[in-house]
Amino acid sequence: MATDQETRESALAQRVVDSFADTPDPRLKVLIEGLTRHLHAFACEVRLTEREWQQAIDFLTAVGNITDERRQEFILLSDVLGISMQTIAINNEAHGDATEATVVGPFFLQDSPSIEIGGDIANGAPGEPCWVEGVVTDSTGNPVPGARIEVWEADADGRYDVQYGDTRISGRGHLFADDDGRYAFWGVKPTPYPIPHDGPVGELLTAVHRSPMRAAHLHFMVSAPGLRTVVTHIFVDGDELLARDSVFGVKDSLVRVFHEQPPGTPTPDGRDLAHQPWSRVRFDIVLAPSAP
Amino acid sequence: MATDQETRESALAQRVVDSFADTPDPRLKVLIEGLTRHLHAFACEVRLTEREWQQAIDFLTAVGNITDERRQEFILLSDVLGISMQTIAINNEAHGDATEATVVGPFFLQDSPSIEIGGDIANGAPGEPCWVEGVVTDSTGNPVPGARIEVWEADADGRYDVQYGDTRISGRGHLFADDDGRYAFWGVKPTPYPIPHDGPVGELLTAVHRSPMRAAHLHFMVSAPGLRTVVTHIFVDGDELLARDSVFGVKDSLVRVFHEQPPGTPTPDGRDLAHQPWSRVRFDIVLAPSAP
Repeated sequence: MATDQETRESALAQRVVDSFADTPDPRLKVLIEGLTRHLHAFACEVRLTEREWQQAIDFLTAVGNITDERRQEFILLSDVLGISMQTIAINNEAHGDATEATVVGPFFLQDSPSIEIGGDIANGAPGEPCWVEGVVTDSTGNPVPGARIEVWEADADGRYDVQYGDTRISGRGHLFADDDGRYAFWGVKPTPYPIPHDGPVGELLTAVHRSPMRAAHLHFMVSAPGLRTVVTHIFVDGDELLARDSVFGVKDSLVRVFHEQPPGTPTPDGRDLAHQPWSRVRFDIVLAPSAP
Repeated sequence: MATDQETRESALAQRVVDSFADTPDPRLKVLIEGLTRHLHAFACEVRLTEREWQQAIDFLTAVGNITDERRQEFILLSDVLGISMQTIAINNEAHGDATEATVVGPFFLQDSPSIEIGGDIANGAPGEPCWVEGVVTDSTGNPVPGARIEVWEADADGRYDVQYGDTRISGRGHLFADDDGRYAFWGVKPTPYPIPHDGPVGELLTAVHRSPMRAAHLHFMVSAPGLRTVVTHIFVDGDELLARDSVFGVKDSLVRVFHEQPPGTPTPDGRDLAHQPWSRVRFDIVLAPSAP
């Protein structure tokens, strides 16, 4: 049986929910009522103290202070709480063997350079050359000629081009699948890097003994008319960070073996890499049908 | 039975909760794990879309942008979602007939002017003079001599002194109960006013068809050694805003009749109000024992 105190607390929560009764937009009404119920349930469950409430206000204020056009600490907060990834999960329900989605991250740019099949997206980005190839099909196994494939990645120093503060464009590009749905390009082998952790979200990670490191990954966005666009990564089999990616982006189906090639191994397209080692990876992409 | 999709979503939420397993501070662990569970439950329940997630990020960014030393939009947000009042409820459990607590609000100042019993806290604040009197007792009915009574209020224009941007100090003060626990002072009759609503929280209130108005009230903070400090308001019986106070601060036990006195009615202390109307109200205060 509820105590008087429980009754008082649930009556207050209900009074707040009821205050949204006249919201004209039915979807906004669902969202704000649901948020209200869950926030009150949280506060009551953990018996939030007035001091903790003040600390939460101070934390959000600090997150707001560091956020500007170049730094989005609220997205980082959403990422490390797994809310970004949960939103992806909710909105990209599995469809048979269709390639699974993961977080888009803050480093995608419109208008990336166009490359030919077999071209190089590195454009000077330091790192071990990596040959990436695969085929794009629909969920019935038919190839998707002309599928648009956007790829972007950090370099061997763990940085995207946009993080250098100059005008370089490197480690990104787009290409189109051939008549058989096949694609291939050169990039660099992905390496782990930390999310920005010099702000309040970094302090939070420190306080909870979590690492800011992301598992090494290469971003893909693949689209074609009539099919569901997939935004995803591939991850590197054997990376010790796979089990503790700071933003929970890893899915087992997205882990790929990057086959290391000794210096001098002939390349698929005859490219001369002098005596550098290189690697190769295969990533076949299956696009689900568009939502009706 | 859970669908595959539900299983995937709850597994992700659990993975995030598990990521906090090594948090050294046990209380922080409870808080962050609880917050994570409730936020994921919210997102899954309402089927949060990626666009809505982006709108939420943009809203929080706007709340952060307007927040500075003088304006605290995160507290306003907490207020209009009833979280501030719920925190008060959680931390001020009812104790017999002890006076109930309500929100402190942003306008309390340390170092208010000291007044004698029967003095005037208005200090030039426009408004109808109002005589406030009562007795402070403990929960066994014994008077509390020397109880410290802080009071503060908006003027008839709906503004606190600190909102004028000058150095005035008006509508606030503190006094001490006499040997019988009695107190009395002059102030102004409270009038309704809006919370600041020219920012994102105001836009939210507009979108949900809620008013920013607070029910008219007079703030009290009453303290004495060995007793639980109460931070509360009294509200004006008959105020049509009692049922829709924008921050959910109203409790039935805090509503008082303000007795209107026609011009020329003799005042309790012989003060000459010329031919102004005035009002009087009685507020007896019961302090609970301190938490052990």
